[in-house]
Amino acid sequence: MQLMTDLGVALETLTASQADLEVLTDGDAPVACAHDWWMRGLIERRQGKERRAGAVLRPASTEQVAAVLAWAQETRTAVVPYGLGSGVCGAVAAERDQVVLDMGKMSSLLDVNDLSLTATVQPGMRGSDYENALNERGYTMGHFPQSIELSTVGGWCATRAAGQLSTLYGNIEDMLLGCEVVLAGGRIIRLPAMPRSSTGPDLRQLFLGSEGTLGVFTELVFRVHARAEATWSRCFAMPSLAAGIAALRLTLRAGWRPAVTRLYDATEAGRNFQVASEGQPVLLLMSEGPRGRIDAESLAVGQIVAAQGGVDKGSEPVETWLENRNHVPSFEDLLDSGLVVDTIEIAIGWERVEPLWDRVVLEGSAVPGMLAMSGHVSHSYTQGANIYFTFVAQQSALDEALYLYDAVWELTMKATHEMGGTIAHHHGIGRVRKKWLSRELDTAHCLLSSIKNTLDPLGIMNPGALIDSP
Amino acid sequence: MQLMTDLGVALETLTASQADLEVLTDGDAPVACAHDWWMRGLIERRQGKERRAGAVLRPASTEQVAAVLAWAQETRTAVVPYGLGSGVCGAVAAERDQVVLDMGKMSSLLDVNDLSLTATVQPGMRGSDYENALNERGYTMGHFPQSIELSTVGGWCATRAAGQLSTLYGNIEDMLLGCEVVLAGGRIIRLPAMPRSSTGPDLRQLFLGSEGTLGVFTELVFRVHARAEATWSRCFAMPSLAAGIAALRLTLRAGWRPAVTRLYDATEAGRNFQVASEGQPVLLLMSEGPRGRIDAESLAVGQIVAAQGGVDKGSEPVETWLENRNHVPSFEDLLDSGLVVDTIEIAIGWERVEPLWDRVVLEGSAVPGMLAMSGHVSHSYTQGANIYFTFVAQQSALDEALYLYDAVWELTMKATHEMGGTIAHHHGIGRVRKKWLSRELDTAHCLLSSIKNTLDPLGIMNPGALIDSP
Repeated sequence: MQLMTDLGVALETLTASQADLEVLTDGDAPVACAHDWWMRGLIERRQGKERRAGAVLRPASTEQVAAVLAWAQETRTAVVPYGLGSGVCGAVAAERDQVVLDMGKMSSLLDVNDLSLTATVQPGMRGSDYENALNERGYTMGHFPQSIELSTVGGWCATRAAGQLSTLYGNIEDMLLGCEVVLAGGRIIRLPAMPRSSTGPDLRQLFLGSEGTLGVFTELVFRVHARAEATWSRCFAMPSLAAGIAALRLTLRAGWRPAVTRLYDATEAGRNFQVASEGQPVLLLMSEGPRGRIDAESLAVGQIVAAQGGVDKGSEPVETWLENRNHVPSFEDLLDSGLVVDTIEIAIGWERVEPLWDRVVLEGSAVPGMLAMSGHVSHSYTQGANIYFTFVAQQSALDEALYLYDAVWELTMKATHEMGGTIAHHHGIGRVRKKWLSRELDTAHCLLSSIKNTLDPLGIMNPGALIDSP
Repeated sequence: MQLMTDLGVALETLTASQADLEVLTDGDAPVACAHDWWMRGLIERRQGKERRAGAVLRPASTEQVAAVLAWAQETRTAVVPYGLGSGVCGAVAAERDQVVLDMGKMSSLLDVNDLSLTATVQPGMRGSDYENALNERGYTMGHFPQSIELSTVGGWCATRAAGQLSTLYGNIEDMLLGCEVVLAGGRIIRLPAMPRSSTGPDLRQLFLGSEGTLGVFTELVFRVHARAEATWSRCFAMPSLAAGIAALRLTLRAGWRPAVTRLYDATEAGRNFQVASEGQPVLLLMSEGPRGRIDAESLAVGQIVAAQGGVDKGSEPVETWLENRNHVPSFEDLLDSGLVVDTIEIAIGWERVEPLWDRVVLEGSAVPGMLAMSGHVSHSYTQGANIYFTFVAQQSALDEALYLYDAVWELTMKATHEMGGTIAHHHGIGRVRKKWLSRELDTAHCLLSSIKNTLDPLGIMNPGALIDSP
């Protein structure tokens, strides 16, 4: 697809009709908003491949978003929707002939309904600002991604995010009840928020996980919850990974729903919970809800874990985790130290959690330069769990670092796919998993292509991410 | 769109290449499978408008379904997918130049995974057969539509069904983890069953609720649950509808999830639970799950209901309901008695449940011939509830019966839409709600049209149901 080469001329037609639209072509913004936190992109930038968007557009209303997308279609300008850029898979990677659509000015909480327990919010609102605003009214969203202070509510929807308390509250697709979306070309559609409908296919699902390739969220209606009456938390040292996996599986199977279900292998347990671990895997659980349920849940789950050989280590390690859970070392600092670090999250059925975990750690550990390949479960389901792999490798030469990075991703994706897991639990596809998406969807990939082609026939919505235009 | 007029010639080409495919053109099947249980269609048939399909095709494999859909595209023959015909909205209404695709031969339970708690089943399996087969293995699907003995698991997916225990187990979209679908033209796609993914839009959702207009399910992977350890049930007489609504709302808000939450207005309570009701609305609750949770839930929910003035009437009325819950009088018998009867289910946010209920009962009661317009809640959410309206009217003249039928539907749809509710909670759109679907989806209706046009460009998949081809 050929994009208009003279973006400047095109922008003049836009600003002529949209005098109030903030357009940034100079300064930091075109560089700062041209990428997300994908480790591979960071290495490439250090190699001198600096990214720069042609312009950053900062709409203040749905109508401005619609005007931009209509203009983009007319001028065949590619548009890269942008929240706060905290993605880690390369879904944001703007070029000089493209514009970034920065949703940061549409960041208001519009309404909270105290009877129907819904909140209406603009997509550019920072996650922690949104949660704090709900807390002030006695509510919670129940959605706590590690990025909550660095990401927007719209970004959560665009990537199909999951939060740390998902085992109780569900994932973003369980929370989004209605939305307003601007389609490529500028058409505004509203999907009403209802308790539940059987009015044909659930069209919200087209946009959840679409990573900016099918449309742009301009308003969101989320489920909210009254803040929990009681909480309980506990850390257990587990005799083996298998015992920890069984404890989680049996907890879910019995019908209990602790909000937090985290199982660290011995490597990560030693790194994060050394005193409790003593060389063993560690299980962290946290329940919240009405007091009667929490009393019953803590008792029953404690027995399930004990039956698997879990040793009670008190709640202090959970408190430590809660305090530090959103602290992530800067990838920039790590690269400065010659370290290549990344996380890769996948999900798989219970019977294959341990075999996949073992295989990836074994194969990852064999990669030259690897210091530590490890994993933890952070989200559990009755069907299975995610595994959140983390790797730390030593490699100060940038081209070698890229090679190493690709090798670890490749072996993890390959093992997951071959063993029947899903290649992405909650970080999305972006650019890093695109090749593997076509393998996972296989015969169904054509369906995603058809939808892309129908909704964005010119292929100008975030080209390069998620799926290539047919 | 012009359909091939000589279906017989077209069928010869099909049977020439698919010698094993069962094709019924004579006997009862072309009439019996040409319609569902839509009351309006029943009245029309009594007026002499007998429906008859050109043929009933009974595929025994995915490959046969694919062959039929490829043939249908080549010959431009319209295809009406068929489960057991228990729908009540007119989604099945076949014509003489169309074929019915009866999925009844694809009715096997293929696999149950005891660790990942999934079951793989063919779409033509009768719901009660499926549930019984799971029960024998110690599991339940948790999905109990009133039609469970008259409907198929594939039909549940096609209509976005809900079951009587949905407040705990969720609705069909919470249960379908993966599927195989044959698209118009015969392409077979498989969507893998995963615990949870962020691999682009959730494509299963395109087919859930598509009512046979976008593709045909040929295999389904459902979540299953270990059978509950404990149950609790209780009936309460409520001082008012408002008190009953508040009790449900506050129960959900507090984080409790009784499996069954049914609130009958005084009319229906008097009809079904006369002794307990004494002229008041009646609330039925049933909880199931691990014993500790059920003990806590029964205590806490009992207190919430008591605080709203609920009077404990024991569990016997719930037992009565459980025994009779799937018994529905035959529409044929009712028509024979000169009665026009139907149910209309909608859903709406908590703050408007009572106003909508009042309005529909008031307006419905004013329709000439109306004997009783009443309602009950059968599904509750933190955001709101459904209302399941029932009307019984006297009208032996068939043309007058149609007029009356349309009038009650019209006023119910209009009131629901105007007050911000959704026009269908779990019976789907079919033909009876099609006009109102475009009003509810409004700006988003074009999106459904685009998808229909993309996946079924000839408009041969169940034409007339859900959505008209562009």
